[in-house]
Amino acid sequence: MRCVLVSKSLDLRGYLGAQFLRAADRIEIVSHPHHGPATDIRLAVAWHPPDDAFDHYPHLQAVCSIGAGVDNILACPSLRPGVEVIRVVDPAQAQMMSGFVAWHVIGHQRRFATYQAQQREERWQRLALRRAQDVPVGILGFGEIGRTVATDLPVMAWSRTAKETPPGISGFDGTAGLDAMLGQTEVLVNLLPLTPETRGILNRTTFARMYRGSYLIQVGRGEHLVEADLLAALESGQLAGAALDVFSAEPLAPRHPFWRHPRIVVTPHDACEVSVEAIGATFRATAEAIRAGRRPPHSIDRERGY
Amino acid sequence: MRCVLVSKSLDLRGYLGAQFLRAADRIEIVSHPHHGPATDIRLAVAWHPPDDAFDHYPHLQAVCSIGAGVDNILACPSLRPGVEVIRVVDPAQAQMMSGFVAWHVIGHQRRFATYQAQQREERWQRLALRRAQDVPVGILGFGEIGRTVATDLPVMAWSRTAKETPPGISGFDGTAGLDAMLGQTEVLVNLLPLTPETRGILNRTTFARMYRGSYLIQVGRGEHLVEADLLAALESGQLAGAALDVFSAEPLAPRHPFWRHPRIVVTPHDACEVSVEAIGATFRATAEAIRAGRRPPHSIDRERGY
Repeated sequence: MRCVLVSKSLDLRGYLGAQFLRAADRIEIVSHPHHGPATDIRLAVAWHPPDDAFDHYPHLQAVCSIGAGVDNILACPSLRPGVEVIRVVDPAQAQMMSGFVAWHVIGHQRRFATYQAQQREERWQRLALRRAQDVPVGILGFGEIGRTVATDLPVMAWSRTAKETPPGISGFDGTAGLDAMLGQTEVLVNLLPLTPETRGILNRTTFARMYRGSYLIQVGRGEHLVEADLLAALESGQLAGAALDVFSAEPLAPRHPFWRHPRIVVTPHDACEVSVEAIGATFRATAEAIRAGRRPPHSIDRERGY
Repeated sequence: MRCVLVSKSLDLRGYLGAQFLRAADRIEIVSHPHHGPATDIRLAVAWHPPDDAFDHYPHLQAVCSIGAGVDNILACPSLRPGVEVIRVVDPAQAQMMSGFVAWHVIGHQRRFATYQAQQREERWQRLALRRAQDVPVGILGFGEIGRTVATDLPVMAWSRTAKETPPGISGFDGTAGLDAMLGQTEVLVNLLPLTPETRGILNRTTFARMYRGSYLIQVGRGEHLVEADLLAALESGQLAGAALDVFSAEPLAPRHPFWRHPRIVVTPHDACEVSVEAIGATFRATAEAIRAGRRPPHSIDRERGY
């Protein structure tokens, strides 16, 4: 069994490095485009694969992502039905995301942007203090990462289908549940997978349902956000600010209005990352399952999209 | 029994408000300077009392602070020996401090100042990510607030005398312990009480023992810090930055170099505050103890200074 590395945006061999290649000891790794015989190429590691990439590997059984998201793989037209798509589940990544989100939540709750503006003006002005529990946080998406983020915050969490929530976390689901949660939300954290149903979910209607002066933490996918609606909501004061880590075109284009917006914090898709160790572990588990004729763990539901 | 409110910096009656006065229902509250008979004034609530204030109340048995710190009361020359000094212990305040410290720790760990500078330059540049456990945090002072701050961070904690530390927290004490902790510290959080022993503890020697590029979170008292030593440590790169919430003169003076320093974050002594409810509860417990001839709870050790 061989594995092909497929990406139009990353040098995957360089990205994954020697550590990954060691972890894959019994599997030969080739890079796309691979021009030799492809009958034993049953496994791929992919990130933003070219449209026709998978046509070259008719015996492919599984494609591993190098992140928690698989939308970039599912969007590839040459991905045949029945090929398993595998995401990486990395508890350390969830912890990292949790810290990133906590920073922005505390920043909003404690009004650090105001302090910063005051400092620039050399202005000593105390502000009314709020406790963490005074700032209701709503999380969109309640998977592995959402669960980890939720443990440190007084949160509500929404997912498409009902999920069990631990004590202290209010769960919401479905369209009515989304409206109900938004109506009580002051900080909205987007951790949803990108699917046809969630594309554009961060729009004017969503913002209008939240408390006036709310804050958006956008760490899902750029395509979740309707950019013009965000700018309008900031303009009207419906949103007090937004932290954006993901964008529909990355890198964010020069002179994009988000760069210089006084109430938008831009970070370069850096909220978290999965470790190469975690990618390696997922890869080994996938290869083992393929060899044994089992379905790989962390295989996603292709119909559902995550 | 009556109680006198004593402060040269605050209108305590306005600050504490109706809620406090209700809580003190069976005790008449007067304000300093009080010119009538003082024999039944056995209790005071004080914050930065004038030097001669307590001379007017010879029957005073206890002075309640309105915060966790009592240094401003102990510094009053007219405070007679034997008068109990009581601090406010407020778990909500500790939670607030914990959020404030977490924001600065995560900000350093995740390099948010660098992202912010990059955003100003419209520069998309990902940075190497560190996990929380890669950034060792040392806490100076391990009382009620220090314990709360510590629970969410991978920390070491130093206190003057040895204290039991919960699992996961390394405890240090004494002069040798301080040096040992500093040698492993990248983020230093100062939560010490101000005493003759701790005055000036944040100085060049302390900074030099920490990792190069460390970060200081100063939430104790302004007098803990030798200001010139901080500026020199930032200049040399020994410290990467500092968050300062307390200053030896407050408000921070116009044109003080801290205001415009690119690597200092100034906040106006706003890391946390005790609630009026907590002050009221402390006051009631003190009054009850005085009536019953007991030592009030949260009475500090005047010799030790905290």
